[in-house]
Amino acid sequence: MAKSPEEEHPQKAFGWAARDTSGILSPFRFSRRENADDDVTIKVLYCGVCHSDVHSVKNEWGFTNYPIVPGHEIVGVVTKAGKNVEKFKVGDRVGVGVIVGSCMKCETCDQDLENYCPRTIFTYNSLNHDRTKTYGGYSDMVVVHHRYVLRFPDNLALDAGAPLLCAGITVYSPMKYYGMTEPGKHLGVAGLGGLGHVAVKIGKAFGLKVTVISSSPGKEDEAVKRLGADSFLLSSDPAKLKAAMGTMDYIIDTVSAVHSLAPLIGLLKLNGKLVTVGLPDKPLELPIFPLVLGRKLVGGSDIGGMKETQEMLDFCAKHNITSDIELIRMDYINTAMERIAKSDVRYRFVIDVGNSLTQ
Amino acid sequence: MAKSPEEEHPQKAFGWAARDTSGILSPFRFSRRENADDDVTIKVLYCGVCHSDVHSVKNEWGFTNYPIVPGHEIVGVVTKAGKNVEKFKVGDRVGVGVIVGSCMKCETCDQDLENYCPRTIFTYNSLNHDRTKTYGGYSDMVVVHHRYVLRFPDNLALDAGAPLLCAGITVYSPMKYYGMTEPGKHLGVAGLGGLGHVAVKIGKAFGLKVTVISSSPGKEDEAVKRLGADSFLLSSDPAKLKAAMGTMDYIIDTVSAVHSLAPLIGLLKLNGKLVTVGLPDKPLELPIFPLVLGRKLVGGSDIGGMKETQEMLDFCAKHNITSDIELIRMDYINTAMERIAKSDVRYRFVIDVGNSLTQ
Repeated sequence: MAKSPEEEHPQKAFGWAARDTSGILSPFRFSRRENADDDVTIKVLYCGVCHSDVHSVKNEWGFTNYPIVPGHEIVGVVTKAGKNVEKFKVGDRVGVGVIVGSCMKCETCDQDLENYCPRTIFTYNSLNHDRTKTYGGYSDMVVVHHRYVLRFPDNLALDAGAPLLCAGITVYSPMKYYGMTEPGKHLGVAGLGGLGHVAVKIGKAFGLKVTVISSSPGKEDEAVKRLGADSFLLSSDPAKLKAAMGTMDYIIDTVSAVHSLAPLIGLLKLNGKLVTVGLPDKPLELPIFPLVLGRKLVGGSDIGGMKETQEMLDFCAKHNITSDIELIRMDYINTAMERIAKSDVRYRFVIDVGNSLTQ
Repeated sequence: MAKSPEEEHPQKAFGWAARDTSGILSPFRFSRRENADDDVTIKVLYCGVCHSDVHSVKNEWGFTNYPIVPGHEIVGVVTKAGKNVEKFKVGDRVGVGVIVGSCMKCETCDQDLENYCPRTIFTYNSLNHDRTKTYGGYSDMVVVHHRYVLRFPDNLALDAGAPLLCAGITVYSPMKYYGMTEPGKHLGVAGLGGLGHVAVKIGKAFGLKVTVISSSPGKEDEAVKRLGADSFLLSSDPAKLKAAMGTMDYIIDTVSAVHSLAPLIGLLKLNGKLVTVGLPDKPLELPIFPLVLGRKLVGGSDIGGMKETQEMLDFCAKHNITSDIELIRMDYINTAMERIAKSDVRYRFVIDVGNSLTQ
């Protein structure tokens, strides 16, 4: 018989877990594997609360395996480093993002695209190579193979930097891959949430002209005055939308709800690129005429590989980019998740795990 | 009052036109402008019959202006060259494709992308700069600004080469633009018609492995034995489709009917590219999960610019690529169009204008 979460591994661990589709989190005792030669053990200090966490605890995507300890925007300090680990030593500031494993031998892994490896191990709600479950960062410590651990630059705030590990790389990677970084070009950012607000900052750091595209008129001041966007386009105003047609080189579409692609494609110039990083659960309608007549493309992208995630952290440190966060205590998590579901957060909750997770 | 088609210009011309939505073509007297300093006058020898011609004569796209003389795969011999024309002299073998004009001063034209210029003048059913109508190649002669005239390489057959001017460039251009030419990579060609069969040949010339994707089992022998495809995938067979999932690097989708993109996207590997060159008149369903999780893209492309069209003709001449054609007389055109509508042609009708257009 399989051992209980508390008994299956030698290192004692403690966190908060959801036990059923109510999604309510509560304290949870479990265990982590011993720190092996390639592993790093990390004392968790901060963990961002991603919208995926909310979907997962409620099993909204249909593949949650309870109990689930969410959290894949993890920042902390190294407390153990295996003998094969050269990159990290005890005391180093480090981060762990969405993945903690992959096959390490396929063509995809060889190309530093571990995130697209068919055997990717996700940071929570996934299975380790030994078939035990992975538990995320809403917990006191994690044990991770050093390949999936990131150096956290000295001048990057541990709390406000945590969300970069998911939100940051999710928008940075497609901008690099699809060639959306040419200074002076015009980037539209559709949706101003956890991903969108970081996309605005990264876009500005690449020297782009950035327009936020949103259906919420209340976000105009935020976008322009606080986040530094060059302009704001109210997508629910047909006249304004029409006036902006054909003016954008690139669009990052962070909207996860089912929505119309036609207006976004219309906003693009010739050769324009629309990249979606949200995950609507139904197909979207794709109009073909404007795609063909304007040689436009619609592409997808999913987080990023480890090498590129490190590059992104270094880029953000250099350009003073962090997430706008609301720091919360561990026991606020259920309220925080309710607020996320209502989009009532600007723009990311980060749990102060180090100071508020008590047994 | 506007002059009649026969009287509006000084050069007498004769061709076949459709007069109404029946789409039936019959002999038509009209006129062409005098050969100006930048113009080339061409005696038409051959003209390909594109599926667009069929849509246009019946006004199926809703913007036909009768009478209409179709034909945009025109091959012939120069009979006059204006004093500013350096590229061509009387007697040269030349071609004219889908466009005969553009603004020549916008950023798009400056980049040799005249085909995407907002003021593109199409070879037929369009308006010249002087607001007179354009008439296509189902006629004895055309007068075209030299920028939009192509050199026809010596070893390229005039009749079987004609369809390259539309079908050839329509598949060649996206393969170059989207980077679908890396030798050894696997190209899927969806739909085996006028465009598809040329895509197979061009794909092989680029050194690609080529698989034809078709719902017609009868096309397997053709695809592999006659056209040189490496394999054939029967898209109506779910088991075969499933077995081929994740095996292709690129797909050129030439299907114009409304169809499902999901299986085609599924056939692509990580970073796979699906480019559509057909023009379904309704939006297609785009599944977002596989696009995001496989970093795939769906792009469009529309014919090509003049410089690239010349490059394509030279490439085809070098690699002995022509269209498979059925050469017809002018008075067979109405039957030919009926057969095209039933996909009963392998793979392009070409009108022997020089030998069969008689007044």
